[in-house]
Amino acid sequence: MKNAIRSTTRGVLLASTLCVSLPTLAAEGMWTMDNLPLAILEKTYGFKPTPAWLNKSMRSSVRLAGGCSGSFVSAQGLVLTNHHCVIGCVEDLSSEKQDLINKGFLAKSNSEEKQCPGMEVNRLEKTEDVTARMQKALAGLSGKAFSEAKKAEQSLIEKACVGDAGDERRCDIVELYGGGEYHVYQYARYQDVRLVFSPEYASGFFGGDPDNFNFPRYNLDMSLLRVYDRAGKPLANADWFPINPKGAKAGELVMTLGHPGSTQRQLTMVELETQRDLVLPFRLMLTSEYRGVLLQYSTQSEEKARIAQTELTMVENGIKARTGMFQALLLPNVMQQKREQENVFRSWVKNDPERSKTYGDPWQTLSDTQIAWRNLYVDYVMVEVGFGAMSQHVNWARTLVRGTAETAKPDSDRLREFSDASLPAVQAGLFAEVPLYPDFERTKLAWSLSKLREKLGVDNPVVKGILGKQSPEALANEIVSNSKLGDAAVRKQLWQGGIDAVKRSDDPAIKLAYLIDEHARKFRTEYDQNIEPVQKAAANQLAKARFAHQGTRVYPDATFSLRLSHGVIRGWEEKGKTITPFTDIGGLFERATDYDPFKLADSWVAAQKKLNQKAHFNQVSTNDIVGGNSGSPLINAKGELVGLIFDGNINSLGGSYFFDESVNRAVSVHPAAMTEALKHVYKAKRLVKELELH
Amino acid sequence: MKNAIRSTTRGVLLASTLCVSLPTLAAEGMWTMDNLPLAILEKTYGFKPTPAWLNKSMRSSVRLAGGCSGSFVSAQGLVLTNHHCVIGCVEDLSSEKQDLINKGFLAKSNSEEKQCPGMEVNRLEKTEDVTARMQKALAGLSGKAFSEAKKAEQSLIEKACVGDAGDERRCDIVELYGGGEYHVYQYARYQDVRLVFSPEYASGFFGGDPDNFNFPRYNLDMSLLRVYDRAGKPLANADWFPINPKGAKAGELVMTLGHPGSTQRQLTMVELETQRDLVLPFRLMLTSEYRGVLLQYSTQSEEKARIAQTELTMVENGIKARTGMFQALLLPNVMQQKREQENVFRSWVKNDPERSKTYGDPWQTLSDTQIAWRNLYVDYVMVEVGFGAMSQHVNWARTLVRGTAETAKPDSDRLREFSDASLPAVQAGLFAEVPLYPDFERTKLAWSLSKLREKLGVDNPVVKGILGKQSPEALANEIVSNSKLGDAAVRKQLWQGGIDAVKRSDDPAIKLAYLIDEHARKFRTEYDQNIEPVQKAAANQLAKARFAHQGTRVYPDATFSLRLSHGVIRGWEEKGKTITPFTDIGGLFERATDYDPFKLADSWVAAQKKLNQKAHFNQVSTNDIVGGNSGSPLINAKGELVGLIFDGNINSLGGSYFFDESVNRAVSVHPAAMTEALKHVYKAKRLVKELELH
Repeated sequence: MKNAIRSTTRGVLLASTLCVSLPTLAAEGMWTMDNLPLAILEKTYGFKPTPAWLNKSMRSSVRLAGGCSGSFVSAQGLVLTNHHCVIGCVEDLSSEKQDLINKGFLAKSNSEEKQCPGMEVNRLEKTEDVTARMQKALAGLSGKAFSEAKKAEQSLIEKACVGDAGDERRCDIVELYGGGEYHVYQYARYQDVRLVFSPEYASGFFGGDPDNFNFPRYNLDMSLLRVYDRAGKPLANADWFPINPKGAKAGELVMTLGHPGSTQRQLTMVELETQRDLVLPFRLMLTSEYRGVLLQYSTQSEEKARIAQTELTMVENGIKARTGMFQALLLPNVMQQKREQENVFRSWVKNDPERSKTYGDPWQTLSDTQIAWRNLYVDYVMVEVGFGAMSQHVNWARTLVRGTAETAKPDSDRLREFSDASLPAVQAGLFAEVPLYPDFERTKLAWSLSKLREKLGVDNPVVKGILGKQSPEALANEIVSNSKLGDAAVRKQLWQGGIDAVKRSDDPAIKLAYLIDEHARKFRTEYDQNIEPVQKAAANQLAKARFAHQGTRVYPDATFSLRLSHGVIRGWEEKGKTITPFTDIGGLFERATDYDPFKLADSWVAAQKKLNQKAHFNQVSTNDIVGGNSGSPLINAKGELVGLIFDGNINSLGGSYFFDESVNRAVSVHPAAMTEALKHVYKAKRLVKELELH
Repeated sequence: MKNAIRSTTRGVLLASTLCVSLPTLAAEGMWTMDNLPLAILEKTYGFKPTPAWLNKSMRSSVRLAGGCSGSFVSAQGLVLTNHHCVIGCVEDLSSEKQDLINKGFLAKSNSEEKQCPGMEVNRLEKTEDVTARMQKALAGLSGKAFSEAKKAEQSLIEKACVGDAGDERRCDIVELYGGGEYHVYQYARYQDVRLVFSPEYASGFFGGDPDNFNFPRYNLDMSLLRVYDRAGKPLANADWFPINPKGAKAGELVMTLGHPGSTQRQLTMVELETQRDLVLPFRLMLTSEYRGVLLQYSTQSEEKARIAQTELTMVENGIKARTGMFQALLLPNVMQQKREQENVFRSWVKNDPERSKTYGDPWQTLSDTQIAWRNLYVDYVMVEVGFGAMSQHVNWARTLVRGTAETAKPDSDRLREFSDASLPAVQAGLFAEVPLYPDFERTKLAWSLSKLREKLGVDNPVVKGILGKQSPEALANEIVSNSKLGDAAVRKQLWQGGIDAVKRSDDPAIKLAYLIDEHARKFRTEYDQNIEPVQKAAANQLAKARFAHQGTRVYPDATFSLRLSHGVIRGWEEKGKTITPFTDIGGLFERATDYDPFKLADSWVAAQKKLNQKAHFNQVSTNDIVGGNSGSPLINAKGELVGLIFDGNINSLGGSYFFDESVNRAVSVHPAAMTEALKHVYKAKRLVKELELH
């Protein structure tokens, strides 16, 4: 592996003192728009973006609030993103009679475009550095006082930013550099988002879990959405990326503009050990068992397979991703090298009395906090995060129980997820009409309650408080059979009735949610008051020391906010084998078998002869991306879309902790494959025209 | 934790140089019968066993060849062991119409006792140290030559030991101290073993997985078997343990005589890291998913729940055990302390030229081998061990394919599991009439083939060789639908027809087994020739150095051979709470709920008023035990049975790597509970009389 901490000064890339093997053209970095590596771009690629280019690119990129990226690709609000980013919507729009997941969806006109329940698209409009203001508000505070002051100040800033435009604007405080900087990000918020095109699951996820994170690859992991304005018309937007069906050449500069979710490249050793020893194996074991449940559920009937399909896809994806992260942390040299880097940095602080006084010993503070966090972790994820009661009914009930209690308080006192700024998204989720499958809900809830009992222990007071003398199966059955929360109107009525209405409800899911909330709040408070603020304060000190040590021209860990990464189209070497950067349509037909997940959709079989077998299908590039970047545009220096990011290779999974340019690759759909597919497989003339795919 | 490496000299327990916190009365140790800690027993407990006492105790103890311990408890061949040790037999004797697992089984007369298919009981008769002979045969050899010479010499020794008595005698070479010593163990072999009594699952495994490895506990985890002689009569045996219903008092000396399966207390750091980073998480993830499949399968119908019950029990037990082991290796101080011990020992060798010359650097050798082993591991367990094709049909087919190929060779050239000494057990397993559930087999095989593809990768040549363009589901379906190996007569005919008959067979399971065997043999050969012998040779050197460093009066790692452990009845402190050593029958009724796994069997509900509520139910003691000890007698100084070992507490799971007397506890069924249950719940007058339970 190579060094994950890079220092650049005014854009001149310098290897840190420790990083002897660092190549000079490293594509590492997820750069914020206010701190782009402009000198690297110029020096390495001869590319000098203008402010107009940057502004247009920013405004052409979007975020799907649920956790993906995307981009505008037409002047009529058309958004390109991944198939796997809209699968939840496709599932919500499906039923036993209309299996859009497996049959695919293509709207022949605007009127056939179907609204995705609860989906929200955000476009970044501007950002502002509010570090000084935040640091002033937090100066000298710790623990509960820190945490409350922070919430209050964030709330004030966000509120001022949103103003009266709450339905159309969203403002989020983004903590960069582990709290070393605070910025407010102002987005245009679009809540009327409609499905335009989604291929069949067999095409959008060809190769399924076996091929996931692999390359060579043949996935048409694309979908099209359309953003509608508040008048119900397709959004007229000036900024969008034209698709260039020719794509980019091997070695050519390509950039992503997307929203990487989270990386942990700045974690200290004790924090990394918590990941390796507790967080990752715990989650992997838990979700592996859940995967087994879902797999077997799927064998019970075709309809059950359809019902569980989306959840299974997400669970398998998460397992594969975490397995890669876990294995990356077990690579022989990773921890050793990270430890050496930390030792050098720590000594640099410790051995200088002035620095020692200025920065203290944040490593020790973080180490102490890890003990508290480790002790809390299982309670926190099972009860507060909710792995111990996985159920639509319980989720809605918990939102009602906690949300009505929180919204009864002033904005600044609330838990962040119920701030005024967040409420439109909360309500959209709560009021969305989505299908509900009682047998599936019963299965998930019974299983997860049994895990609650297992992970906390049968004699644990929280478990006894929630289960009493009931079994997980009996309790799940009671909830699913008797709760009325499946009806969106009931949920809306309760929400609008506020805390009194919810308290009066005798719905069994609400009752369970109160039992859970009683304990969950304790764990949340413990985290919010005794762990997070201490960690934040220490990370803050660490960030300041790091700026002093390495200069300020570094990139921050990912925060699901807009980042640019640069790289080139390039394959890699694996076990002595050269992996070339492109696959072709012909390869798809060679790889196909008669069985899922390698079975071709009928539409592709029918179109085989019309398709250009040599057209590129998928490609890899050296861009530094991570989960959340799904759906990101891959653009060239002209601002043309030359790829649609949908995955990383298996080696990219260590990217959470470090970037290894020799093997870490981003995987994207080639525009030629999109063009061929829309033209010949899906015969989507209307879209071909709108996208100008000549 | 405390030091896992203990040195005693002529029975005087000495703390090793590193172990500053070592208490002087540590119960640590699984001692071989030829090297008992007699001085400790005398000094600590004032107990001085006579040779006659020792001989009688040895001959009263038995081993269930499938992986458990037990003891004779009457002069008519009655064997006491755990419910969970015979559950496989009970399952084999059950059917949809006769659910003996959940209804329990009680033979009212000898004629009602039912033979357990394939079960074998072994009683140790004598042992002989053959170290000198083995070391002479292996002197100067390495790699393939080492491995072949070892097999050949073992085979000669075992053969000479068995003589003409193959059906009645079994001889195994036991490698102690990581190959530092070789002993030949001669057993009486009994292959007609019949089920006499087994309680309902709800009683034998009350509390199920949630309570497993926990204490306080209320499990009647007992069963009775009877060994029959070759004339079909109950075995007349002179040596057996009388049950004392009063049990032992808190603080009293209690000993186990059982067969601990395996411990890894002497592993070097790199070997421990392989456990922590690869073996344990890999197995845990794999089996967690399998558990999910089985759990969901069990919800599909009552009959499916019955079919999957035993497998699920075993899988859950394995997961809980490995989770405990994994967590033990992650305890903050364990690896650190082990590392320090190793550094001291290693320096002791390295810093002395004479020692350095004599012992070399086995740590480095083991470190080098770990790389090869880690690279091989996944292939080995998925293909050779068989996790990638879990199926009765495939297991039988693989035995036929490999067994007929091996038995065509001279004994000394064969893989050890097909040596003449092993064949009776192989054949008993292969010819046993057991029920077969096609849907269950299809489920297991399809799932495990999909894991083969996942873990090795979809483009792996082994996977391609086995699956071709088939899907796991389609291949599993073909095997289960068309294989004839479910018929024991077909298996017997093929076995007796030898390699030619098997090669000619067009049974799809046989065909698959040939495909698997082609690859499996390569992995096996790699292990047998390039990994194991190198490790063994290094472990050998390490053992010699350890003897020189710490004296020879230490105990070897567990090897599923007879061991004595001493301890006392004693509770422990956990998180500031005192856990007392006994539970009572009354506590069972308090813990019961209306739902599995806390639902009482009807028989217990009916008997509640007749039962002495204050009679002890389960108990804990400080004995050093591990998996394989299940069913071990717990005896007092008089040689009376005062408990039936069935579990350890959760803290005992670190026992694979170290023994921590402060919290590691063995859990046993109290004889009072057995007595009350047989008298009042099961009204087993015949057995109460035979066991003399007054």
